[in-house]
Amino acid sequence: MSKIILTGDRPTGRLHLGHYVGSLKRRVELQNSGEYEKIFIMIADAQALTDNADNPEKVRQNIIEVALDYLSVGIDPAKSNIFIQSQISQLTELTFYYMNLVTVSRLQRNPTVKSEIQMRNFEASIPVGFFCYPISQAADITAFKATTVPVGEDQEPMIEQCREIVRKFNSVYGEALVEPEILLPDNKACLRLPGTDGKAKMSKSLGNCIYLSDTPEEVKKKVMSMYTDPNHIQVSDPGQVEGNTVFTYLDAFSSDEDFAEFLPDYKNLDELKDHYRRGGLGDVKVKKFLLNVINKELEPIRARRHEYEKDIPEVYNILKRGTEAAYAVAQDTLDDVKAAMKIDYFNDAELIKVQSEKYSRTE
Amino acid sequence: MSKIILTGDRPTGRLHLGHYVGSLKRRVELQNSGEYEKIFIMIADAQALTDNADNPEKVRQNIIEVALDYLSVGIDPAKSNIFIQSQISQLTELTFYYMNLVTVSRLQRNPTVKSEIQMRNFEASIPVGFFCYPISQAADITAFKATTVPVGEDQEPMIEQCREIVRKFNSVYGEALVEPEILLPDNKACLRLPGTDGKAKMSKSLGNCIYLSDTPEEVKKKVMSMYTDPNHIQVSDPGQVEGNTVFTYLDAFSSDEDFAEFLPDYKNLDELKDHYRRGGLGDVKVKKFLLNVINKELEPIRARRHEYEKDIPEVYNILKRGTEAAYAVAQDTLDDVKAAMKIDYFNDAELIKVQSEKYSRTE
Repeated sequence: MSKIILTGDRPTGRLHLGHYVGSLKRRVELQNSGEYEKIFIMIADAQALTDNADNPEKVRQNIIEVALDYLSVGIDPAKSNIFIQSQISQLTELTFYYMNLVTVSRLQRNPTVKSEIQMRNFEASIPVGFFCYPISQAADITAFKATTVPVGEDQEPMIEQCREIVRKFNSVYGEALVEPEILLPDNKACLRLPGTDGKAKMSKSLGNCIYLSDTPEEVKKKVMSMYTDPNHIQVSDPGQVEGNTVFTYLDAFSSDEDFAEFLPDYKNLDELKDHYRRGGLGDVKVKKFLLNVINKELEPIRARRHEYEKDIPEVYNILKRGTEAAYAVAQDTLDDVKAAMKIDYFNDAELIKVQSEKYSRTE
Repeated sequence: MSKIILTGDRPTGRLHLGHYVGSLKRRVELQNSGEYEKIFIMIADAQALTDNADNPEKVRQNIIEVALDYLSVGIDPAKSNIFIQSQISQLTELTFYYMNLVTVSRLQRNPTVKSEIQMRNFEASIPVGFFCYPISQAADITAFKATTVPVGEDQEPMIEQCREIVRKFNSVYGEALVEPEILLPDNKACLRLPGTDGKAKMSKSLGNCIYLSDTPEEVKKKVMSMYTDPNHIQVSDPGQVEGNTVFTYLDAFSSDEDFAEFLPDYKNLDELKDHYRRGGLGDVKVKKFLLNVINKELEPIRARRHEYEKDIPEVYNILKRGTEAAYAVAQDTLDDVKAAMKIDYFNDAELIKVQSEKYSRTE
């Protein structure tokens, strides 16, 4: 069976380094691996509206930002199909029918939904659309017959929910859907990058993100004010690297080549960490190194973004072409689903024949 | 503003006298009143699947039964648009977006949903689709810009839910939806017909229904074994008419003309009731009268049904034409909804222009 990827992001803001190490970088590698027959990358505007119903303009304005970020990091429209979720109406139809295959209590037990509800301070006023988004996500995945969903560990319950829906559908109506596999990150450091303030997660509202589209000046300001070891006051003090954001970022980004290029006094990150632990190494020196490392990573991304920014209508054309291709695939799946459910009555010659015969017998 | 009706039934079985006095008879009167510009009558197969997901064949086979019942009672395809819900994909898309405008706790408080959940013995395992059906129903109503929904008092919370969604949508995204009014029955006797066994409701599973498509023999058997007054043992005993199913049915069906035609010893139902109360009037005599009354009502319905049964493919053609017309109207509404939500990006020249200018300024 050919391998198909479905992945994507909510367009609620520009993408940042957390997205980059958590998913985007790997996504480009998967794209270029040649292992996948098709790759669908979804700008999940409809999902974003489930908890932004009152602020549609935010979602609307950020679609182009996410598209620019995708293209900038090396997502290649010739290899990957970037599309806008809300333009694929078939996804809502699949969601609607899958909703009959999941119980309310099953959704309430979903740990991802539980923690997201907590994170958003919804409490009693959870929008139904948000509550149901695992089902909507199952529609997104299955519409493209995705075999592979590259996500973090925290998303495992979502994929399991999708697999349950697939099994239930196939057993009730007949085999029409493909059960996806989760593809977890292969590198611990890639799991989740903390904010520049040391908080567990980068978040726009906390103002602790480095965006892929930040200028070198913005990145400099953010790196130089990064959270390190609060007890490392004098350069001579011994410092801690665990929980030290600068070192966590170096774990995620720096290579031996970076040391040769920017900080040849050290062979590699281990040597730098040893010195920091011993004392005698100042934060500023480490931060300057990190700044070089990050800018080296971001420079080609910025250059590509700049090119695409010159022709916004063409970016929309790329999205439109990707969306048209995605639409056709989703329609094929919906046709299969409706055939399995036998709800395509007007084209169901057998149904009409059998019922005609039934009534001719009763005359 | 022109008046538009949306109404319908779940195709989970043939329609019975309860449907007839509760809604169908009035529906035909409304249709023929000339007061309504458009009338949409929905065969709610998708809604039926919300609590019949495991038994799609039941729903599939009953669409034709409900269609035949509609045509038999006098629903005229030239005046009323009969359509199949699942074939209007726009309804699922509207449902999807409305789900963002309703909270989970609001649905949990809906008294109609509460009592339906109890009736179906769902307890903890309520399918999400069933739980959300007030939202789906709001999509059905608003898709056709219905001004008027003729339903029983028990459905008032559903219409109120729809009105809330309309108000919320219009306030967040701009006026695109029409707030419907409920049209309650004008006759107490029409509210709910008990089963032939005296139980509160006709229900296929209880086997206490008289179907519109029953033969005269079937109706005779059911009427003659109907629940009456259990203390009315001898003909000479005084009898009770309250809670006596035969009299409840006579309340709903009989007219003074029926007495002149079938039971001229009595001028009207009051005289018959008085005699029954005094004693000296046997159940069999009253039942025979009721049988005549019901058969008089059902005879033209049976005759029409018999004609339509001869050409089942034509009935499907009627449904197909009605569905195509409904589809076009629902698409217009969805276009309005998407325009209000501003999620028609590829045709949004203004959005693309503004964003192009934004990036040309940053160069």
